[in-house]
Parts: sequence; C-alpha cells; structure tokens
Amino acid sequence: MGLSEEQVIAVLAEVFSSSDSRVILGIGDDAALVHGSARQILTTDIAVEGTHFRSDWSSAFEIGRRIAAANIADVLSMNGRCDFLLVAATLTGNESIDWIRDLAHGIQSQASEAGAVVVGGDLARSQTLSIAITAIGHTDSPIRRSGAAVGDAIYLSSLTGWSAAGLEILSKGLSTSGSSAARALNEYRAPTLDLNIIFSAATSMSDVSDAVLIQGAQMAKASGVKFEIQVEEIESALEFSELSSLASEIGGDVLNWILQGGEDHALLVTGVNLPGLRIGLVTEGSGLVVIKGGQEMKMAPVAWSHFDKE
Amino acid sequence: MGLSEEQVIAVLAEVFSSSDSRVILGIGDDAALVHGSARQILTTDIAVEGTHFRSDWSSAFEIGRRIAAANIADVLSMNGRCDFLLVAATLTGNESIDWIRDLAHGIQSQASEAGAVVVGGDLARSQTLSIAITAIGHTDSPIRRSGAAVGDAIYLSSLTGWSAAGLEILSKGLSTSGSSAARALNEYRAPTLDLNIIFSAATSMSDVSDAVLIQGAQMAKASGVKFEIQVEEIESALEFSELSSLASEIGGDVLNWILQGGEDHALLVTGVNLPGLRIGLVTEGSGLVVIKGGQEMKMAPVAWSHFDKE
Repeated sequence: MGLSEEQVIAVLAEVFSSSDSRVILGIGDDAALVHGSARQILTTDIAVEGTHFRSDWSSAFEIGRRIAAANIADVLSMNGRCDFLLVAATLTGNESIDWIRDLAHGIQSQASEAGAVVVGGDLARSQTLSIAITAIGHTDSPIRRSGAAVGDAIYLSSLTGWSAAGLEILSKGLSTSGSSAARALNEYRAPTLDLNIIFSAATSMSDVSDAVLIQGAQMAKASGVKFEIQVEEIESALEFSELSSLASEIGGDVLNWILQGGEDHALLVTGVNLPGLRIGLVTEGSGLVVIKGGQEMKMAPVAWSHFDKE
Repeated sequence: MGLSEEQVIAVLAEVFSSSDSRVILGIGDDAALVHGSARQILTTDIAVEGTHFRSDWSSAFEIGRRIAAANIADVLSMNGRCDFLLVAATLTGNESIDWIRDLAHGIQSQASEAGAVVVGGDLARSQTLSIAITAIGHTDSPIRRSGAAVGDAIYLSSLTGWSAAGLEILSKGLSTSGSSAARALNEYRAPTLDLNIIFSAATSMSDVSDAVLIQGAQMAKASGVKFEIQVEEIESALEFSELSSLASEIGGDVLNWILQGGEDHALLVTGVNLPGLRIGLVTEGSGLVVIKGGQEMKMAPVAWSHFDKE
C-alpha cells in the first residue's frame, strides 16, 4: 500500500472543507464541534463491499452518493432535515487515491444536495472495504413508524422498484439500452432522494431501505393496525407502465421489484390527503396484505436482507 | 450462520434499553430522537479485528469497553461529556449470540460509566469483524489542540505506557504474574478513562490514542509552538518505577511504552498549574523534542498506526 494515512486525510479534508455556519470546528481536531438542535435525529448505517455495493458495478462517486443517501433517507423519514455526516471507512489498501477522492466527492455531493456537511470521520485498514456513515439531523415535529390510524391511506413518495430493476440487470449481466434501463441502473447505483416532497401531516413514516413489504409490515406492527396494499392503485401510477415494460423486456417481475425490492429509499407514509403515490389503506387488524382484484395475493417472502444474505 | 438479524437486534435492544431523559426515542425506529446541545461534540472511530483488537487476546466484553472508551476519550479531550453512542458493526457469522451480548454489555458498561446512552446502530455481514462507534457529546467551553502557549507546562492526566506494556506481553506470548503485568494486560484490553480529572483551564488538549509523541507533535504544530518533553519529569511520576520494573522483567523499553505506545487514552494537555502528571514545557519553536540530562534524545519513529500497519 503506497498511500499513507496523512495523504488520504489531506484529500478528504480538502473534499469535505466547508464554511457552514452550523459548524464551529470541522475536520482536524479530536472531534468536530457543531451547533446542535433541541430535537435531534441520530442514525447510522454501514455498507460493506460485496453485500451492499460492488466496486465493479458502481463508480466510487456512485458508491459514495448511495451510502450517504441511505443515511440521509433515515433522517428524512423522521420528518427531519440532515445537518451533519461522519464517515468511518475501512480500506483494503487496493484503492487508489483517485478512487478515494471520487468516493468522498460522491458523499459530499449527496450531502450537499440534502443540506448536510461532512464534519469528521475515521480510517482503518481491513481486508474488507466498508463505509459507516452517521447522520445527524433535526426536526420540529418527528414522525414515527407507530402513528398509522385506521382510515388512513398509504402513500409512497415515488414509485419504488427502480433500484431492484437495476440490480437485476447487473446480476444477470444484461446489456441493455433505452432510457428505462438507464434509469434503473442509475437508481441502483445512486438512488434519488425525495427531498422536495413534504409529509408534515403524515401519521407514520419510514424509508424503504429493505422493501415496501418489510417497512410496511414494521409500520403496521408498530401502529397496531393492518396495511392493505392495493395492486390496482400501484398499477395506476404514472411510471408503472414504464417499469412494467422494462420488466417484460428483461424477464423481471415488476410487482416483486416494487414491493420486495430495496434501496430506492422512497418514503412510505400514512395519512389523509397526502402528496405522493397512493398505494393502499390502513384498516383494523394486523400485518400487511397485498390485494389484487379483491383477493389477497400470495407474495414470496422477501429474500433480501443485508444481514442474513450470503 | 444460525443467527437472524431479528435475534441479534432483540438482544442488543435489551442490553441497550434505557429510560434516560435526554432520549426522546431510542432503538426501534428509522433513527433515534434526542435532545441535542448548543455546543455539540461529534466523533467517530472504527475498530477492526486483527488491526485494533484480537478476539483471542480480549473477551467480547473487553473489546466492547475498549472501543467505546476510544470514542468517549475523543469527547473528553474536547473538554466535553459524552451523551449518546451509535454502534455500527459488521459481523462475520462466526460470533455466537453470547459473544455478541457480551460485546454489547462491554459497550454499555463503558458508556454508562461515562454517562452516555447507546441510542442506535446498524448491523451488516462482512468477512471481517469491525465495530464503528459514533459518540455525541456536549461542552460549554471546548478545548482544542491549537491553544498551547509558550510558557505553558505539558501534563498527562495519568501515566501512559500500560497499554503498550500489555500489548508487548501478549505479542511475545509471555506468561506473566504479578499486579503490574495484570494491570498492563487490563489497560491494553480495556483502558481506564480519566473521567474524574477536569482540565477546564487547559490551553490545549488531546487524548493519547496513537502516542504521546504523535499527539504532542500534532498539538505543537496546531499551536505554532515547540513541545519539550522532559524524561526526568516522567521518571519522577509515582507509577514510573512500577512500569519500569515491569519493563526490566519482560525486556521492554519503558520510555518507548510511555512516549510511543498508544491507546491508553490518557489526556495530554497544556496550561499553568493543572492537575495530573507534569512532563514538559511549551517553548518557542516548532516540533516535539524529548530531553534527558539537558540533551535531546533520539527516539525511533513511532511504528504504530492503525492505518499504515500490516
């Protein structure tokens, strides 16, 4: 390994330099010093090469954006805004300084779009490349998973499934062309956060990091209600036909992508007259069901878990 | 791997359960919600099996305490107190649920001693065991690395070198007996934080995570001054003879342990009439020198770095 810690830190300090007024003291001391908030959101996510991303499928810039997005989405899902990020990475020694700089630029780019500043981090050597990000945000009125009420509708901030479609293209090694495939690959590599849709009136909220079926079931359980997802409502979404055509083209299952795919980081919310895409109803009972033509559909269990996989 | 993510999370949620009034919402939602502070300290540290700890040298409980201590020390070194911890771990699948529970108890034990609460985390599968902790604290009057002034004395909150001594015993595979060796092994496995010594009047401060010579040189550079470490002052420390006898016994170099060993997490500070162990003077110039009998000593470069090692 030709790179010293000093070289890498110098590059990171340059990429992450900032004059944000929320930051009293950024990178360079034992810790960062910032102006905190009365109601503060704290969350952390760790991503591992081979489990959460593959360097041969995504550029360093995309990997950086993707991991930052996963963390920022958890802040958004509390009805918050992200202020600060901390990045702890383990490097194998096979990364070039350019790759590391691009990774940092990706994190910085996504952070900046979300209004957040990278204020610190740590580096260590390991056999496995991994990146742990901690996001710190604030909210005036937190929205939890547990507030869904009978009679609420269920909404998505945007149609999920694009990231799963991109993963399927890459996993099958398909050469695709066309704008739908390109969008799917982009969403897998660096998901778009729904930063401009505000759900202050939502009764419950979570981001879809694992799958609509998983996060929906968690929200239903936390709220003591039943989630009924209506396939016809999903099919009426503006972008459904585009995603459906892509599924036909590459032999994928569009409903599986939408309901059982992960990592789009769309927001799943409940409430009355909310913006976004309406996909179902909160009713009395427990659990989550998917209904098509008035009948409950059998969905295969979600195979995807970052922990249980391999 | 027989353990599911749900099983592991259930154990962690139990170990980390808390009713602390600073926490609005702990483990279980997309993110934690806490009462923040006007002047907040943020820091993260990642520890990797084989580089920072070895499961065959330390118990899971000790590893947990050690990694929590490294993060809390960074908060203490800003003249702060730690409020919250977030833990992101990668597990290989070879850990038993008991080992994971003990690790969590170790983190919880050190957090609790320092007045901090574990409010969230993340788990992922990896070929390499690693634990990233983010610590969030507060301070009314931050102390940086950059405030050392000519005429200040240099102090340690306690004598360093015990952790390096413990590492040498383990690395050489020695069977030792006696209280000094036991203390060295304990300090390597789970360092004692100097939680009760207050340095509010210090002009600069850092914790000794790498080595007195490294952190001292960083403080001297940041402050635009010279650090002169006096060996005679170190030798007059109460515990010096005990550590020195241990060095003779096992063929170690006591000054090397004290000045070039890492991970005791003692606080290195500058100022006038401070508590702790006085070890030198801040003078005009730049860099760090070690002086014995009025002569500058040649010290070997510090070999230890978590990043460059291997």
